[in-house]
Amino acid sequence: QRSGVPEAVLADGKTPTEVAQLAATALSTTGRAIVTRADEAQAGAVRERLDDVAPAATLSWSERSRWLVAHGPEYERPDLDASVGVVTAGTSDAVPAGEAAMIVREMGADVERVDDVGVASLVRVVDQLPALREQDVLIVAAGREGALPTVVAGLVDVPVIGLPVSTGYGHAGEGEAALSGMLQSCTALSTVNVDAGFTAGTQAGLIARQIDDASGA
Amino acid sequence: QRSGVPEAVLADGKTPTEVAQLAATALSTTGRAIVTRADEAQAGAVRERLDDVAPAATLSWSERSRWLVAHGPEYERPDLDASVGVVTAGTSDAVPAGEAAMIVREMGADVERVDDVGVASLVRVVDQLPALREQDVLIVAAGREGALPTVVAGLVDVPVIGLPVSTGYGHAGEGEAALSGMLQSCTALSTVNVDAGFTAGTQAGLIARQIDDASGA
Amino acid sequence: QRSGVPEAVLADGKTPTEVAQLAATALSTTGRAIVTRADEAQAGAVRERLDDVAPAATLSWSERSRWLVAHGPEYERPDLDASVGVVTAGTSDAVPAGEAAMIVREMGADVERVDDVGVASLVRVVDQLPALREQDVLIVAAGREGALPTVVAGLVDVPVIGLPVSTGYGHAGEGEAALSGMLQSCTALSTVNVDAGFTAGTQAGLIARQIDDASGA
Amino acid sequence: QRSGVPEAVLADGKTPTEVAQLAATALSTTGRAIVTRADEAQAGAVRERLDDVAPAATLSWSERSRWLVAHGPEYERPDLDASVGVVTAGTSDAVPAGEAAMIVREMGADVERVDDVGVASLVRVVDQLPALREQDVLIVAAGREGALPTVVAGLVDVPVIGLPVSTGYGHAGEGEAALSGMLQSCTALSTVNVDAGFTAGTQAGLIARQIDDASGA
Amino acid sequence: QRSGVPEAVLADGKTPTEVAQLAATALSTTGRAIVTRADEAQAGAVRERLDDVAPAATLSWSERSRWLVAHGPEYERPDLDASVGVVTAGTSDAVPAGEAAMIVREMGADVERVDDVGVASLVRVVDQLPALREQDVLIVAAGREGALPTVVAGLVDVPVIGLPVSTGYGHAGEGEAALSGMLQSCTALSTVNVDAGFTAGTQAGLIARQIDDASGA
Amino acid sequence: QRSGVPEAVLADGKTPTEVAQLAATALSTTGRAIVTRADEAQAGAVRERLDDVAPAATLSWSERSRWLVAHGPEYERPDLDASVGVVTAGTSDAVPAGEAAMIVREMGADVERVDDVGVASLVRVVDQLPALREQDVLIVAAGREGALPTVVAGLVDVPVIGLPVSTGYGHAGEGEAALSGMLQSCTALSTVNVDAGFTAGTQAGLIARQIDDASGA
Amino acid sequence: QRSGVPEAVLADGKTPTEVAQLAATALSTTGRAIVTRADEAQAGAVRERLDDVAPAATLSWSERSRWLVAHGPEYERPDLDASVGVVTAGTSDAVPAGEAAMIVREMGADVERVDDVGVASLVRVVDQLPALREQDVLIVAAGREGALPTVVAGLVDVPVIGLPVSTGYGHAGEGEAALSGMLQSCTALSTVNVDAGFTAGTQAGLIARQIDDASGA
Amino acid sequence: QRSGVPEAVLADGKTPTEVAQLAATALSTTGRAIVTRADEAQAGAVRERLDDVAPAATLSWSERSRWLVAHGPEYERPDLDASVGVVTAGTSDAVPAGEAAMIVREMGADVERVDDVGVASLVRVVDQLPALREQDVLIVAAGREGALPTVVAGLVDVPVIGLPVSTGYGHAGEGEAALSGMLQSCTALSTVNVDAGFTAGTQAGLIARQIDDASGA
Ligand SMILES: Nc1ncnc2c1ncn2[C@@H]1O[C@H](COP(=O)(O)O)[C@@H](O)[C@H]1O
Ligand SMILES: Nc1ncnc2c1ncn2[C@@H]1O[C@H](COP(=O)(O)O)[C@@H](O)[C@H]1O
Ligand SMILES: Nc1ncnc2c1ncn2[C@@H]1O[C@H](COP(=O)(O)O)[C@@H](O)[C@H]1O
Ligand SMILES: Nc1ncnc2c1ncn2[C@@H]1O[C@H](COP(=O)(O)O)[C@@H](O)[C@H]1O
Ligand SMILES: [Mg+2]
Ligand SMILES: [Mg+2]
Ligand SMILES: [Mg+2]
Ligand SMILES: [Mg+2]
Ligand SMILES: [Mg+2]
Ligand SMILES: [Mg+2]
Ligand SMILES: [Mg+2]
Ligand SMILES: [Mg+2]
Repeated sequence: QRSGVPEAVLADGKTPTEVAQLAATALSTTGRAIVTRADEAQAGAVRERLDDVAPAATLSWSERSRWLVAHGPEYERPDLDASVGVVTAGTSDAVPAGEAAMIVREMGADVERVDDVGVASLVRVVDQLPALREQDVLIVAAGREGALPTVVAGLVDVPVIGLPVSTGYGHAGEGEAALSGMLQSCTALSTVNVDAGFTAGTQAGLIARQIDDASGA
Repeated sequence: QRSGVPEAVLADGKTPTEVAQLAATALSTTGRAIVTRADEAQAGAVRERLDDVAPAATLSWSERSRWLVAHGPEYERPDLDASVGVVTAGTSDAVPAGEAAMIVREMGADVERVDDVGVASLVRVVDQLPALREQDVLIVAAGREGALPTVVAGLVDVPVIGLPVSTGYGHAGEGEAALSGMLQSCTALSTVNVDAGFTAGTQAGLIARQIDDASGA
Repeated sequence: QRSGVPEAVLADGKTPTEVAQLAATALSTTGRAIVTRADEAQAGAVRERLDDVAPAATLSWSERSRWLVAHGPEYERPDLDASVGVVTAGTSDAVPAGEAAMIVREMGADVERVDDVGVASLVRVVDQLPALREQDVLIVAAGREGALPTVVAGLVDVPVIGLPVSTGYGHAGEGEAALSGMLQSCTALSTVNVDAGFTAGTQAGLIARQIDDASGA
Repeated sequence: QRSGVPEAVLADGKTPTEVAQLAATALSTTGRAIVTRADEAQAGAVRERLDDVAPAATLSWSERSRWLVAHGPEYERPDLDASVGVVTAGTSDAVPAGEAAMIVREMGADVERVDDVGVASLVRVVDQLPALREQDVLIVAAGREGALPTVVAGLVDVPVIGLPVSTGYGHAGEGEAALSGMLQSCTALSTVNVDAGFTAGTQAGLIARQIDDASGA
Repeated sequence: QRSGVPEAVLADGKTPTEVAQLAATALSTTGRAIVTRADEAQAGAVRERLDDVAPAATLSWSERSRWLVAHGPEYERPDLDASVGVVTAGTSDAVPAGEAAMIVREMGADVERVDDVGVASLVRVVDQLPALREQDVLIVAAGREGALPTVVAGLVDVPVIGLPVSTGYGHAGEGEAALSGMLQSCTALSTVNVDAGFTAGTQAGLIARQIDDASGA
Repeated sequence: QRSGVPEAVLADGKTPTEVAQLAATALSTTGRAIVTRADEAQAGAVRERLDDVAPAATLSWSERSRWLVAHGPEYERPDLDASVGVVTAGTSDAVPAGEAAMIVREMGADVERVDDVGVASLVRVVDQLPALREQDVLIVAAGREGALPTVVAGLVDVPVIGLPVSTGYGHAGEGEAALSGMLQSCTALSTVNVDAGFTAGTQAGLIARQIDDASGA
Repeated sequence: QRSGVPEAVLADGKTPTEVAQLAATALSTTGRAIVTRADEAQAGAVRERLDDVAPAATLSWSERSRWLVAHGPEYERPDLDASVGVVTAGTSDAVPAGEAAMIVREMGADVERVDDVGVASLVRVVDQLPALREQDVLIVAAGREGALPTVVAGLVDVPVIGLPVSTGYGHAGEGEAALSGMLQSCTALSTVNVDAGFTAGTQAGLIARQIDDASGA
Repeated sequence: QRSGVPEAVLADGKTPTEVAQLAATALSTTGRAIVTRADEAQAGAVRERLDDVAPAATLSWSERSRWLVAHGPEYERPDLDASVGVVTAGTSDAVPAGEAAMIVREMGADVERVDDVGVASLVRVVDQLPALREQDVLIVAAGREGALPTVVAGLVDVPVIGLPVSTGYGHAGEGEAALSGMLQSCTALSTVNVDAGFTAGTQAGLIARQIDDASGA
């Protein structure tokens, strides 16, 4: 059984106690614990439990992106010779984009953030083209009409993964329009589910690993 | 009762005989007949009937956009001092865009066609910016992910009407993704239904008339 | 890069701190800050921040329509020679209609409110016809079955923008029936997303600007 | 077991032979056969079979509304002291409206047709108000945005049954917008499924029977 | 303008103050105020306001069905010679069924409640057949799969109005399955929107009035 | 690898040649070929091919239910001591019900057909109760509102599998209402996809095998 | 009237008082009370009421799966010679799986739990194959993409009932993807509604009873 | 403007003449023409036109996968040091899988086909594991419940792109269930639209190019 993807605890639909228990087990067995989509109560329970059972671990936490990562004292993160750009159209996209960036880093690739390049002001996209073209893979997050990944993919020749974000109200809001647009895109995008920063990040991480492998690094 | 919009016969769901009869009546009572969304049988019936009852009328017909227009010998089209740009992303968008352009012309405004400026190659859009900015109103047709109206609206300061086109297959195909994207657009678009070239055209025509009025022409 | 549309901060999905920061930046760089769809916490944060960093600005706020507008002491609003009618069917439509009216005013056009002309009592619509026909553009807000824009558009010859409102319960509630009805309307409506008062307002504002331009004012 | 509704054969999804057999059985056992939604092959099979087995029956057939009715030589239709108005917005609505009218007549009530009173030209609706107000029940058929039943119900005080028609293309086409609008109507409409002329007609027929009963006729 | 339907204030989407104000106006102008779908805050505001401005009025209130009715001291309810059965499948159906019963009574007809005759135990339905057959019209409320109105309509020959209820979880929950089933019913049902007790009740009330009229009472 | 289910070729989306090839292979390797959902061209190709390569096989074919079954000369069908009732509401339900019955027989159980017991005439259901209660498992097929499986499951204490049928037009037509109603049923139904006679039949067959096993037959 | 299924009170949409009353009645008339989907307030009300009116009853309660079961002092649960496997893919599936297991036990069959055999790590599924194959029926619960029942049904030859769980976010979240996948499964699954542990359990219980019957136990 | 993706003509929605013209232009300007989703008439028109204008070109054509590729006499395909596995669950998946394989080859990577490894018989998947693990990227096509990409991604550590196929009938048929399942997958899949073999192939090709680049080949 191999999947190449770090174990992570998806907090949705679990009780705080269950999440904390799963995190503690992950930390003690693999040297690392990753928790995603944790609400305040779940995050609190995890921190308390880890403080208790693994005081030597280093814990990082993003309130906005709702993830926690703990490394045991001996844990050594992989280090890949590949760089993943994580691009956002606006402030709200930072939530799943932050989740994606976290998991890319945990898989060992470099992360380059390019923020606030919304499609309604193309000049900002064009200004960032050199930075975008330097990356090995791009994750492009966008909500509402979700046009940014299409525009970016038309301007670069690296693989782009579209990450639809649950913004937008009314008809096809909550990311449905963005997802539909990415699936219908007239460019070579692949896509993940709405807000699935974890999936976008792990897919980018797997590609990064192939590139690292090939580089003979 | 005033609506400002030319009478037109929507052929969908009518028999060829019904369509031909409605067209003949329109021509004899208003000096003009407009038929939209006619299939081959319906178009044939209209042409035959008008040949018969109104041999002096001039008939134009678009097989691709599926409309017919007949003008009685005395008919004089209005002439407005306003120009409407009709913009398409690709070849298939020409179908409803052609319908829109026809009705704009029938309402008396000038039509400027800007074709094949798909969002996947932004340079073509940018090249056309001067032409686009010269228009008083823009109708921008796009299928699949429908991002073109959003991109255009971010680059011009004239009103843009999004016209979603029923292209695209799979999830949210047949124009649904394009419509959703235009409704969710982060720019100041208004939108019409999928393939509703007639509605986009009449809305643009009404705006053109307001502009013409104001110009004191 | 030109879009003709005032910058506005959409509060949905942002933290109060983020919204306040974006508003403060807008005010200091453009002389004006517009915030839409702010909940109580976001509105409070904005007011506090602006009180702090821009005590000389004048702030207006609509609790019902959830917008805030701040003008710096030097700010001068544009003034267009064009009038936009904002029409509602019932009490609940006032929420997005108020948002639309605010942005029309910020773009410089005159606003004429015509309220409570629901389609179930046509006499009230008919009574208001003279007022409606005097406007250059109409925004017509309606929830539930959303028939009002269709009825109005059949009675006037100015351009009408339909604004579906998220009222209605059960099947196709929350504005979906109203949106569908406006898209399917047998009149020359263009439409915006459910509750998208901002989009309806900016589109009307852009049309108003074209009219003002043409009038040579 | 009583349902008050005449037996009818719904041709959809049956072979021509099955439909013809069911019609012949109905005619021989009840003195009447009613077939709805028959395509050409099914209608042909029914006519041939009835010619064969019941040459004395009188057969009527609507190609447009796709129904057939056969009465045995002895059959006597019920006769109710009640009148049902069947109202249409446009030419295409005639298909299910014709089905509704047929079944109302078969149940014994009088039918008054009021056609082509589309909501985009309210004057025609208003002109017909006296006729509409004279009926005991109204069936109002409308496709696209389906606003006519709402407008009519606001002007009369008899019960109105909305009959959505499968016209309209694009988003919520094929009668979905009309159905949604009737369900969300701010008036006292009841509704039937899209194109369900049979259901609207039988419901009106049952009401007519209650009125006839009460009148002591 | 005549619609035959009592004015009612739909509380959804209005502030408590707005609802109270509309109720007070209705009471003072028509002698009666009806409020539907009021939450606790709205109901409280109405009661306080009416206590204040109309202490002589009699107020009734259903916490479960969320309606309030106030009659001025002089108000006399109409009295029709017709009876409406209001039938429920289970405990939860009582919410919209209670709204329907209230408005039927306010329109002057008699109401006969038949409760807890769920389709999973047909014997209870069969036991109630005599009572059901005595009514002039039936409103049948049902959630989940919504089969009860179909079963009842197959057993009686009076008109049946299906009232889908927003129960049921998972796929097509919240009344969507019940609505779909009623629209697809193989009997002569007409239907209203999910939870639309008000609409079912007013439609039944209008039918009751026609029956009363015919009876020459 | 064990699944307990006979191999069958699903003809949908395959060319006639592909279907014929797969059937021939199945026959020669397992002594039996089962093809489902074959259109005329596919059925023709299968028959021709089997005539050719396996002239000694016995072939049965249902044009209405669109299946073919071939048994090699040595093939011996299993024989289970269990009986499955296959129940239909109307003529059109026979299509998937026939597919279900075929596969039940191929798995070795007895099949008892109970047809035309539509929910709109409960007496016919009640008449058949003794027959229904004698079966070990029931498959109940129903289209439109799909209420029959719910009614039956309330009257018997054997397991019932609901089989929704793609009849019904308009909203939630093509079996969607029936499926929704079965999923929301207030009785102990399990369900299969719309028209999935094969799945209903194999599930019933697996249950029949467990019963046969337990009976020690 | 026989349905073979224990009466249970579905707490959804009822007030705590109503639920408590229904539970008390069930206990006093049948010796047993089963309540499902109870929230904290409802569960509290039930426990209080039963403590009061039936202090001799034994009460069990699952906070996670939200059910309560009370047995009167004389109550004797049935005992069937059949075993039902209840299988889950992950922690969150335990909620409806627990409901299913409870009702299977109440119907008298043995329950074997097999937990945490998610499809992303097939080895765990394969390890449990011997246990799975020993059961007479399997209920397999899975959320998100819901592939586990398909994988299991391909490996065993006992009947499998798929139980979709309302996990998953974004497009087709809340169990819709899982339900769709089970309905489309290329194996012989039957399915129940999302989270319908009660329905899965009662269906399995009815099958268990048939097996017990056949075993002559 | 760079996108890294070969130009291709999407035949959907174009006339045969338009498709042929676009293909001829592509061939003469880039040395290569790629046409996808061509029906018979379109494919015929392309072949005729290319025969005419470019007799020296070599043309390949897949009737099943509906693509045409023409290489001018001088054209030299790129050659990348990377291998892409294209995996299918069943016969019908070959249609979009063939499209994906074609474009991967045109972009220069090696293609390894692994067919008929449907999830209902896991042994075949397990047998192919060594081959699957040798690839640099995998495209996994699956229709109906679409579980194969999830199962494969759990067994390999290379990036997997899910390609949903428009098979399956009834609820969520035509690939919707497969798409939903891939988006909800608990593994690190990225996804493309239903039947979007071209998109899956170009995304895989872009990844292959990054790997080739890194390998310093
Ligand atoms: N935010 C996330 N979004 C989607 N999948 C996730 C996320 N976080 C973790 N996962 C996946 O879900 C699995 C954990 O599921 P569970 O057993 O329910 O905790 C992990 O191994 C990941 O494959
Ligand atoms: N519970 C209800 N459901 C549906 N329509 C209602 C309801 N209560 C009142 N109405 C209708 O909605 C109208 C009031 O709408 P409004 O102007 O928003 O208060 C009334 O005149 C009724 O026709
Ligand atoms: N009519 C049917 N409906 C659903 N599943 C079927 C049907 N006929 C065959 N199957 C299943 O689909 C598999 C065949 O799929 P395929 O490999 O595409 O021929 C069979 O093994 C059955 O499990
Ligand atoms: N959790 C559940 N999910 C689905 N159906 C249930 C559930 N619990 C009870 N039921 C069914 O719903 C009926 C109770 O409905 P009610 O009369 O509303 O309490 C019971 O007799 C069961 O058939
Ligand atoms: Mg993997
Ligand atoms: Mg107008
Ligand atoms: Mg602009
Ligand atoms: Mg009846
Ligand atoms: Mg009325
Ligand atoms: Mg199996
Ligand atoms: Mg039962
Ligand atoms: Mg690119």
